Amino acid sequence: MNLYDLAREHALIASSAEVLGWDQETFLPEAAATHRANQLAWLTAKAHELSTSDAWKRALSGAEASDDRSNPAYSANLRELRRRFHRATKLPVELVSREAHVSSLAKHAWAAAREASDFTVFAPHLEKLVAIAREKADRWGYPDEPFDALLETYERGATTRSVAGLFDTLRPKLREIADCAVDHSSRRSARLPAGPYPIEQQQKLNEAVARSLGFDFTAGRIDTTAHPFCTTLGPRDVRLTTRYDENDFTSSLFGVMHEAGHGLYEQGLPDADFGLPSGEAVSLGIHESQSRLWENHIGRSDAFWWKWFPIACDHFPQLRSIRFEDFLEVIRRSEKSLIRVEADEATYDLHILLRFDLERGLIRGDLKVNDLPAAWNERFHALFGMTPVDNRHGCLQDIHWSMGGIGYFATYTLGNLNAAQLFEAAKRQPAVTNGIGNGDYAPLLAWLRKNVHALGGTLDPTELIRHATGTTPNADAYLAHLNTRYCG
Amino acid sequence: MNLYDLAREHALIASSAEVLGWDQETFLPEAAATHRANQLAWLTAKAHELSTSDAWKRALSGAEASDDRSNPAYSANLRELRRRFHRATKLPVELVSREAHVSSLAKHAWAAAREASDFTVFAPHLEKLVAIAREKADRWGYPDEPFDALLETYERGATTRSVAGLFDTLRPKLREIADCAVDHSSRRSARLPAGPYPIEQQQKLNEAVARSLGFDFTAGRIDTTAHPFCTTLGPRDVRLTTRYDENDFTSSLFGVMHEAGHGLYEQGLPDADFGLPSGEAVSLGIHESQSRLWENHIGRSDAFWWKWFPIACDHFPQLRSIRFEDFLEVIRRSEKSLIRVEADEATYDLHILLRFDLERGLIRGDLKVNDLPAAWNERFHALFGMTPVDNRHGCLQDIHWSMGGIGYFATYTLGNLNAAQLFEAAKRQPAVTNGIGNGDYAPLLAWLRKNVHALGGTLDPTELIRHATGTTPNADAYLAHLNTRYCG
Repeated sequence: MNLYDLAREHALIASSAEVLGWDQETFLPEAAATHRANQLAWLTAKAHELSTSDAWKRALSGAEASDDRSNPAYSANLRELRRRFHRATKLPVELVSREAHVSSLAKHAWAAAREASDFTVFAPHLEKLVAIAREKADRWGYPDEPFDALLETYERGATTRSVAGLFDTLRPKLREIADCAVDHSSRRSARLPAGPYPIEQQQKLNEAVARSLGFDFTAGRIDTTAHPFCTTLGPRDVRLTTRYDENDFTSSLFGVMHEAGHGLYEQGLPDADFGLPSGEAVSLGIHESQSRLWENHIGRSDAFWWKWFPIACDHFPQLRSIRFEDFLEVIRRSEKSLIRVEADEATYDLHILLRFDLERGLIRGDLKVNDLPAAWNERFHALFGMTPVDNRHGCLQDIHWSMGGIGYFATYTLGNLNAAQLFEAAKRQPAVTNGIGNGDYAPLLAWLRKNVHALGGTLDPTELIRHATGTTPNADAYLAHLNTRYCG
Repeated sequence: MNLYDLAREHALIASSAEVLGWDQETFLPEAAATHRANQLAWLTAKAHELSTSDAWKRALSGAEASDDRSNPAYSANLRELRRRFHRATKLPVELVSREAHVSSLAKHAWAAAREASDFTVFAPHLEKLVAIAREKADRWGYPDEPFDALLETYERGATTRSVAGLFDTLRPKLREIADCAVDHSSRRSARLPAGPYPIEQQQKLNEAVARSLGFDFTAGRIDTTAHPFCTTLGPRDVRLTTRYDENDFTSSLFGVMHEAGHGLYEQGLPDADFGLPSGEAVSLGIHESQSRLWENHIGRSDAFWWKWFPIACDHFPQLRSIRFEDFLEVIRRSEKSLIRVEADEATYDLHILLRFDLERGLIRGDLKVNDLPAAWNERFHALFGMTPVDNRHGCLQDIHWSMGGIGYFATYTLGNLNAAQLFEAAKRQPAVTNGIGNGDYAPLLAWLRKNVHALGGTLDPTELIRHATGTTPNADAYLAHLNTRYCG
């Protein structure tokens, strides 16, 4: 069988598992968790079997032997498929299926632990997940420390050392920006008018906004979950989720703009290449650049609200009682807060730096799972000057580790850097800048389609940023953006 | 590998396909249909491969050789797994894939033909489907006539001769009952008060009713689809669907009671045997007995509404303008109508008898496909005293044949007979009768759990009815029920 046919069969299996995973988050009855874990374990094992099979190995070697380098996308696909084959064959089927099973149960335990703010409910599951992550890292190998191998899962080509170096540089500057943003906000008293903001109205506004950004609802949906996400169940089936706060419509709206940013990237990948690296998002750091670009650079801009504030007032009449300038203060309000997903743009990355340090410690073995709550609280205090009231507002707040997603968090901050750098480059096109001014996002989306989405995974993240912006990935655009917006 | 392990693996694959199928009916974005078809084709092929594999064959023979008959459920599982293996392996892959191809095209042609009320659009497809059904019957073998083998697909152990004999006896009696029910209704003028009956209120009432019947929402859900159904995605994951008519809340309510009847059966099967015949519903005729029992014997009874009419009035204040006795007339209204799925209890089976005769004739070759519309209209006139206005309201109304489901229809009437016979037997328990009188369905459900659900597929349908009721399956209880309710 042809390598591409095998890769497409693999994508059929993996995308079937995505359907079961999406259903698990949105609609699964609680008593069904165990069977769902078994179904997912079977599908994951089958996908793994196929991608580590002799047939795959032969097809890959055959394709490499006959590659005449005349088609760069084809060569890029072979390189990436070889990298994945290497990583996949290092993991025995037993480990892969054990991980699927453990993490499916861990997700439910995490939800219960978070609900009860009881870390002991989650701790034994996290213990297993950390051990599995270490085992995977050891089997994959790494240049420097086991965490490298985990980071590489989400961000092709990134190393712990380079990311940690970048974060060390960012830390003092981000703390300065956060201080100045928080200080500015503390001297403003604007508040969002009191709710309720009916959920049905929020859904209507969110859908209208997502549609205006270019999200295609014939090839996607928005549903409700405890923790918002975006997942792709097929080349024309992109599912976003959000959650609602009846006292604050901006929470679900910015959530939807964020997830729609992910969704636009997925909808912009070449359909015909579904299942091949050239038809897939290249990395989470690039993925997150898309969500952050739409959420923060567009969604928190003056120009966006010139168009959407009057429409929001039609949905929520109480908004007419706040001045437009005060509303802008509200949506850019900065304060030091406990919850990452509720954190504002100016303080967000400090939450990431915290998690990156802790998960790196867990994998290194410097930090024991049972010590996590205390370590979290101590470091949180060092960064933010306050201590979480309980573990629900501390180390139990995020779903990532419960899914085995150790190594993931860094990509959020990489995404913020990439977003700013890409947005700066896109705005060099007058059509893009004019469009944004008029609430017409088609030119911006077209630029992203051409320079990011259509490329799929044919370039490494670093190359892609260089190709799209003309410069090596760096923090200049992001720090300039934050300084202008929050310390201007 | 152990036979039971193989059967459970097969169930994991099949139940994963059910998840994708459920999502397809409820939430799938329109542009995603092709990819979903590819995902389902892959899962179906894997399930078929496994259940016809050499490993399966060896495991089956090994289990049979060592079966010492000391465990009747185990022996019953082996018999049924052997029967399925025989049926699965008698069909060459070429035939299975030809059928999938033909029926996929036929479904589209049927939808177009129905829309245009033009039988000639569907006829060539039905021609092919009948030929394939004949070929399958010939390969499977049959005692008497090819239709036996098709019936056996849906109703283990049933023969055409026995069903036809039963239907011949029923026909004149059902015509009498229908005449007298329709005559009675024509002399009553009661009408349901005008809508709207808000969908949200319908959902609340339906959920309260389903819960009171015993449906477990920690192991199931109710969602919305164009065509109501019940599907099982796992041993503790039973999904019902319904559709809403804002002018008539009883339409979704009886729909939910019907589907909840299916769902209660599925939730009552032994979890630990999921994937084995002993953990599965035995046949469609027994499945339908459960839905009909709750929908008609409970849902259309006086006692049910003693409890639920006041609650329904709280949900829909306009109901206070109809007298209780008139409301009962409304929900038991009978009239001769063209469409099976809209038919009332007193006329429903005549629609089935018609279809059974015609599909049997098609398979025998007595009836040519091109003569179907004329034969339908002629027989319909003989049974109902009226002629369909067009083929859309006649032989093109049902989807079943277009999916290759020839032999399916009889199970609806078998279900009605079984429902009445089981309900009569259950009511011999004073606790059951008292419970029903007080709106407490726990004793009835407990009786069904013990005498039907817990048995899974360990007994053939005929044995199961004999075991549960003490008598051979017969029409007495059903005719007595209809006579009492409609000709009293």
